[in-house]
Amino acid sequence: MNKKAVVLLSGGIDSATCCALAKRNGFEPYAMSFSYGQRHSVELNAARRIASFFGVTSHSIVEINLRAFGGSSLTSDESVPKHRDVDTGTPEIPNTYVPARNTIFLSFALGWAEVLECRDIFIGVNAVDYSGYPDCRPEFIAAYQKMANLATKAGVGGHSLTIHTPLLSLTKAQIIRLGTECGVDYGLTHSCYDPADDGSACGACDSCIIRKKGFADAGIPDPTRYVQLS
Amino acid sequence: MNKKAVVLLSGGIDSATCCALAKRNGFEPYAMSFSYGQRHSVELNAARRIASFFGVTSHSIVEINLRAFGGSSLTSDESVPKHRDVDTGTPEIPNTYVPARNTIFLSFALGWAEVLECRDIFIGVNAVDYSGYPDCRPEFIAAYQKMANLATKAGVGGHSLTIHTPLLSLTKAQIIRLGTECGVDYGLTHSCYDPADDGSACGACDSCIIRKKGFADAGIPDPTRYVQLS
Repeated sequence: MNKKAVVLLSGGIDSATCCALAKRNGFEPYAMSFSYGQRHSVELNAARRIASFFGVTSHSIVEINLRAFGGSSLTSDESVPKHRDVDTGTPEIPNTYVPARNTIFLSFALGWAEVLECRDIFIGVNAVDYSGYPDCRPEFIAAYQKMANLATKAGVGGHSLTIHTPLLSLTKAQIIRLGTECGVDYGLTHSCYDPADDGSACGACDSCIIRKKGFADAGIPDPTRYVQLS
Repeated sequence: MNKKAVVLLSGGIDSATCCALAKRNGFEPYAMSFSYGQRHSVELNAARRIASFFGVTSHSIVEINLRAFGGSSLTSDESVPKHRDVDTGTPEIPNTYVPARNTIFLSFALGWAEVLECRDIFIGVNAVDYSGYPDCRPEFIAAYQKMANLATKAGVGGHSLTIHTPLLSLTKAQIIRLGTECGVDYGLTHSCYDPADDGSACGACDSCIIRKKGFADAGIPDPTRYVQLS
């Protein structure tokens, strides 16, 4: 029998690839997504399509209210920045950063893992194209895993819990090539921070720019429907 | 001007005392409570009374759904254990343990602290009367603080964040004496896991037993209204 794993599934390229890798490594994925006051349900619909594509055993959608404390253009009414040069490696943290988002998401995954008696969590964080988010750094993940093992019954019982980050040191192009090898249908995924009403991607936000460049660098056709052709 | 601090406020003795200590130490408390599928709103009403008693600047009540993954008698339909001997120091974790609860609560506090640009979080955990919960141990808090400093912009900027646990090594009686010195009105607090419809405490669950013993050991009259007089 396969080992259970909780896989955080946002609906984007990285988490879809992560889910494929969990399956390829013999895990039975339990997908977890969040409804957190995002501007668009497009993202959650993509997560549902991907969960269904991979035939996950269970897909838990947790409703939480990150709008309660604001602080990010993804959960408030600030504008999403457009046409930025994401290659300059600026140390500035963009306003699309949601405070403590990965910490909160991993904490719910931890609770579910404990209930499922599963010792493996997959998260598609990435330190290469991470857009300057502090909670995508490898040292954050290592510290989280250590804390998680002290937080739970599993930790008390001496069975250790692993936070898997198979994409941590890959570029977007490498992720797309790897996922394509694993049969991921990237047409099901969604990346745009500011999609049109029909779900088309804006093509100009950080996330669209990184996505387009990833497909171009990988030499794989981009299946995304963009509002603006660039 | 006082420094801001996020104070986790459950409505019980410990968090009320913690809030009093934050104020006494010159912090301006921002209270945070959770509506997480508890059986009773009695607990949240107590949190509201205490926030008002201390005149906190803001009281954020975050709705989250811990019922989504079950696993505890406090969030599911299992029975709360009664009349247990809480003094035996059994290593068994009771079924009132909510998976990853403190991890989840601290993660929301961390997000709010980041938005408020505040570097101090107070949580009333206690390693003496902790009922066997792994996420009340000092090593958990230390690991959490280390992770939190890697998770956030504050961490990136080199300003460190502190998780204050002023009750960590105190007995319930010591907490009650300390809070009484600080003017806490414990009549506003609520501890019972299984209250009657009118809010009276059952007197028999672990939490009631620990509370009663705390007042008795402190030599301070217990202001609680119990259903059963023992």
